[in-house]
Amino acid sequence: MTLPPGLPAHAREVPLDRAYRLLNHGPTVLVGAHHAGQTNAMAAAWACALDFMPPKLTVVLDKATRTRALIEAGEADGHARFTVALPCVAQASLVTALGTTSAVEVPDKMARVQRDAGLRWRPVPGTDGLPLIEGCVAWMVCRVLPQPAVQQAHDLFLAEIEQAWADERVFHGGRWHFETADPALRTLHHVAGGHYYAIGEPVVSPEQGTRA
Amino acid sequence: MTLPPGLPAHAREVPLDRAYRLLNHGPTVLVGAHHAGQTNAMAAAWACALDFMPPKLTVVLDKATRTRALIEAGEADGHARFTVALPCVAQASLVTALGTTSAVEVPDKMARVQRDAGLRWRPVPGTDGLPLIEGCVAWMVCRVLPQPAVQQAHDLFLAEIEQAWADERVFHGGRWHFETADPALRTLHHVAGGHYYAIGEPVVSPEQGTRA
Repeated sequence: MTLPPGLPAHAREVPLDRAYRLLNHGPTVLVGAHHAGQTNAMAAAWACALDFMPPKLTVVLDKATRTRALIEAGEADGHARFTVALPCVAQASLVTALGTTSAVEVPDKMARVQRDAGLRWRPVPGTDGLPLIEGCVAWMVCRVLPQPAVQQAHDLFLAEIEQAWADERVFHGGRWHFETADPALRTLHHVAGGHYYAIGEPVVSPEQGTRA
Repeated sequence: MTLPPGLPAHAREVPLDRAYRLLNHGPTVLVGAHHAGQTNAMAAAWACALDFMPPKLTVVLDKATRTRALIEAGEADGHARFTVALPCVAQASLVTALGTTSAVEVPDKMARVQRDAGLRWRPVPGTDGLPLIEGCVAWMVCRVLPQPAVQQAHDLFLAEIEQAWADERVFHGGRWHFETADPALRTLHHVAGGHYYAIGEPVVSPEQGTRA
């Protein structure tokens, strides 16, 4: 199995029929895009699984974001793809920096967040520069499923997940195992203004527990 | 302030401009519907905030569910509303029961889950029977924003949140405060097959923390 460069040694491919499980528990994500030499990334709390197989997701991307502009520029060219990465507790400052710095106002956003908050990324192989953000615990490459009505009226993007990888220390056997890993690898769940919750402890409902 | 009957003494109205925060951290929800004397409720892991004000959300409702049929029957009558409730750790068995028992196969689902898993609900005042499920930590009344294309092709429903309440022991001042409350009141985040994570500990990114 070959892994894209930029993924850590702990990364493993996630079978596509298990990719929805990366999102089931509602983590905050980082959305990355690239078009014509420009790369950008933003934080998004409003991302959600949409289908099992092929796996799909929804994500809300405000019209004021450069990341959305890059995705829509790709859409006009007929190949609108973006990356979705799941950041972890160790990256809280990076997520806040990506979520509060706008590339529209700060054209060198990526360089600045690289300098100030440790942002590192590499291009997904086979693409001209879609960013894989290092240090996250899962990554997806997504292709936009055009839905102009909800895209324009509600900033809502639908996409198919074409490739997925996760850090095997927290995701293996087709599901998350946060409870046996370093707490710094837990996913982040945004509350408001730079405040998050980490995902917590497992809860098994009794009926299912006896069958498991 | 009057509260709908069925809500616990701890319930407080959530200002509509803070309602999106009930969903920001990605909890699993219960969706309730009522039409022509029939009531049903189901679990949904794929619910997500969509807008700030007026607050909106998305939720995926499979065509095979009775809850969706009841909502769409209301849509045909021009008043498609449903409830969204956020269950907590104390209700894990109830969530699994509502998520695995289908009213299409088990017509007396609600009575059976009432008997076997402690389901209790009351109608939202001013509606003919929209169910408010007791023991949850937040509740919303939502009105469908018709989007026939994504509704049919992707089972994706968009809705506006018209009313919201939350348990003040875990949500006050416009945000969650799980860390100072009974752990049984934490929200559930579905993994797979009756397995959940509870929401965990707060994480504050340093830059924001110094400003807070």
